[in-house]
Amino acid sequence: MAEKKLVESITSMQEDFAQWYTDVVKKAQLMDYSSVKGCMVFKPAGYALWENIQNELDKRFKATGVENVYMPMFIPESLLQREKDHVEGFAPEVAWVTHGGLNELQERMCVRPTSETLFCDFYANDIQSYRDLPKLYNQWCSVVRWEKETRPFLRSREFLWQEGHTAHATAEDAEERTIQMLNLYADFCEDFLAIPVVRGRKTDKEKFAGAEATYTIEALMHDGKALQSGTSHNFGDGFAKAFGIQYTDKENKLQYVHQTSWGMTTRLIGAVIMVHGDDSGLVLPPRLAPCQVMIVPIMQKKEGVLEMAAKLKDKLSNFRVKVDDSDKSPGWKFADCEMRGIPLRVEIGPKDIEANQAVLVRRDTREKIVVSLDEIETKVLELLDKIQVEMLERARTHREEHTFVAENFDEFVDTVANKPGFVKAMWCGEQECEDKIKETTTATSRCMPFNQEKISDVCVCCGKPAKSMVYWGKAY
Amino acid sequence: MAEKKLVESITSMQEDFAQWYTDVVKKAQLMDYSSVKGCMVFKPAGYALWENIQNELDKRFKATGVENVYMPMFIPESLLQREKDHVEGFAPEVAWVTHGGLNELQERMCVRPTSETLFCDFYANDIQSYRDLPKLYNQWCSVVRWEKETRPFLRSREFLWQEGHTAHATAEDAEERTIQMLNLYADFCEDFLAIPVVRGRKTDKEKFAGAEATYTIEALMHDGKALQSGTSHNFGDGFAKAFGIQYTDKENKLQYVHQTSWGMTTRLIGAVIMVHGDDSGLVLPPRLAPCQVMIVPIMQKKEGVLEMAAKLKDKLSNFRVKVDDSDKSPGWKFADCEMRGIPLRVEIGPKDIEANQAVLVRRDTREKIVVSLDEIETKVLELLDKIQVEMLERARTHREEHTFVAENFDEFVDTVANKPGFVKAMWCGEQECEDKIKETTTATSRCMPFNQEKISDVCVCCGKPAKSMVYWGKAY
Repeated sequence: MAEKKLVESITSMQEDFAQWYTDVVKKAQLMDYSSVKGCMVFKPAGYALWENIQNELDKRFKATGVENVYMPMFIPESLLQREKDHVEGFAPEVAWVTHGGLNELQERMCVRPTSETLFCDFYANDIQSYRDLPKLYNQWCSVVRWEKETRPFLRSREFLWQEGHTAHATAEDAEERTIQMLNLYADFCEDFLAIPVVRGRKTDKEKFAGAEATYTIEALMHDGKALQSGTSHNFGDGFAKAFGIQYTDKENKLQYVHQTSWGMTTRLIGAVIMVHGDDSGLVLPPRLAPCQVMIVPIMQKKEGVLEMAAKLKDKLSNFRVKVDDSDKSPGWKFADCEMRGIPLRVEIGPKDIEANQAVLVRRDTREKIVVSLDEIETKVLELLDKIQVEMLERARTHREEHTFVAENFDEFVDTVANKPGFVKAMWCGEQECEDKIKETTTATSRCMPFNQEKISDVCVCCGKPAKSMVYWGKAY
Repeated sequence: MAEKKLVESITSMQEDFAQWYTDVVKKAQLMDYSSVKGCMVFKPAGYALWENIQNELDKRFKATGVENVYMPMFIPESLLQREKDHVEGFAPEVAWVTHGGLNELQERMCVRPTSETLFCDFYANDIQSYRDLPKLYNQWCSVVRWEKETRPFLRSREFLWQEGHTAHATAEDAEERTIQMLNLYADFCEDFLAIPVVRGRKTDKEKFAGAEATYTIEALMHDGKALQSGTSHNFGDGFAKAFGIQYTDKENKLQYVHQTSWGMTTRLIGAVIMVHGDDSGLVLPPRLAPCQVMIVPIMQKKEGVLEMAAKLKDKLSNFRVKVDDSDKSPGWKFADCEMRGIPLRVEIGPKDIEANQAVLVRRDTREKIVVSLDEIETKVLELLDKIQVEMLERARTHREEHTFVAENFDEFVDTVANKPGFVKAMWCGEQECEDKIKETTTATSRCMPFNQEKISDVCVCCGKPAKSMVYWGKAY
């Protein structure tokens, strides 16, 4: 009964996807609302996901030569204003500090919404010669954007992220790094989070404030909405000119640097929930899962059961493994494992011990596999690998089944209205058409994918000659 | 010459300790000033120290059952005011956010100077029953205190730290955790940073705003000044009463929880510099050092030298090892290794290769050891261990040589004035005497050490019966 109650306590996806999402976030104990409006509390289960994301990304960054630094959290107003497009993009949504202790500040400062201006200010002094380049810096921190509507992990006034900021001698080096980091993000999402992504470039309308080009990875959630999951920006020498970041080259001539920035945030946790979750709760890919294997003893008061559970835990110590030896019923524990998304459950009771076996239960498919205790290690390893691979495959299949093509405007409008998912359609390159599409359908251009296909010769909106194929969709 | 110039570029400790400190911080490229007053930029070499401190402490916390979480960075004014002593302690030194985007906030919020109020607000909802206890939460974040005077790592308006916040069923459990974490901090300082510390309790005058008891570890810097290096607070049920944090016990009665908090900050990096550094720059203990071994090829253009350096790097891959194959001279590289505090330098040139040997040079003692290439791995391991142990021993000897005893006030005043270091002296327990000592000598009570000794029967200041022996000293 307790089991049923626990499961019943979340709304089904079909019924109300938004409510399902909030229920999972709460019941899997990932986060809680705080009394600070628009800000969340990351509870241990939620923060552990971020820690694992952080460790893995950090390792991948460092393998490409990136070093971590830490910049101040405050930006003086005059510094924020130095680059014109940038300030226009961010000034309306920052939090302003006006007093320090009992005194009013001479100049107010905002809490960083992003740190381009701080890095530029630093680079202007730190970079002198071509020998100082490239600078490949990253920081892990929290940033603040004064959002009106907020949703757990997806949009909050304060969120955790990493922001990489690099400076290069040439435009080519900057472009190469921009693409390199986008690909790193995409590979990370696919390998580690089991989330397939579309890699592409943002239209000018959707690009970052102050960037020459913004590249993005776009993932499709279970409800058919898109989620921008990571972005990488090429600034050219725009910021360098605004902040005077110059170096002397080998011929002793002064040159402006070329810069990039790239970021991923805690919204990735939202993506994991909405790509993999089901009506029993969270489903975590094994590489991400803070606990990969939960051992549930059956009839644990019987002699030898808890001892065997502990022995199994030792045997499986190569994995992130726990034993649930609490005084709850096995049924409650099963439901709890499911709610929390633990990839593999191991059931072990007196009968299993007698038969020298255990029952493994996959979270993603619920498949039960009886294995001999003699080969449980290799079986667990195999199964975790298999789950990781199949979760990515399933998500890819789901995305393919929800990716449509529209050749004309009627088809486009109909698809967006009736078929949740991505719509691939041609575009002339004019913002007017993007605006009209958004107004008519609420879909936005997600990206111009690197893998271009030719669907027709003309823009789906205006009928003029098309310049590129675009992924469109409703988005979080 | 280049070598000399690099070394000459820092002030000697004898001449001006404060300037020496600033020089080391700058020349070892640990940090830089930013254009945000009172805030610093952590450069890669400085942040790498913090990362290593963080990884090691985090592992030790988790081994005691602590889980990481993340609370919002803002505290509404009404929340900060909930506990009387606490708000009095912090309100004068916080940064206030008054505007979000273009609108004035209905209630201003401060940027957290510490997060007791946020954790309490969270616990008030999250804790219901004795089954929910203990809560052993920690967060890694930055905090802001509007300091007037700032110094790199030691005191800045924004600094990085961890803050643990726990809630317990009983007063005994809270006290036990408070002491456990203090001992964890002390062991960490000694094992990992090679910094010996005095463990003790703060006087009421020096304790944390809102705490029943504050415990501290105090380290002695090379110049004889003390540095408070970590604190652990027992709040009793004071915050629980102010915030209404109650649980139902096994008899179904409502009880208040008992709480603790404990923190360590980036000032530890300042401690490492000031305990171990010398006139050639930083000296890092091997366990902390981001790079433990630097291989410097001699006559690197000669055939086979760079190849052998690379081979050695592979051979030493169990350590954090690098090769400096830049086009600088060996002399410059030696000085650079010293400035950056790299524990062990490996010199390898054509003659060494011929003799199947390399020259190892210790940073701390400058001792040169010629070793056969066949046993270089074991030799490096031995030496790094030895350096770690001897650095702690040297620091302990320095502290013992700079710890004095004063039996009467004249002796006390004379010692503080003429002998930099700790002064052990008896105290009656009255704040009046603490105040008088501070006024007369600028020394403050550092702690009442756990290891009490009886120096005399009477207070060093007023001559009344003494209650405890206190470590006194000038402090950062």
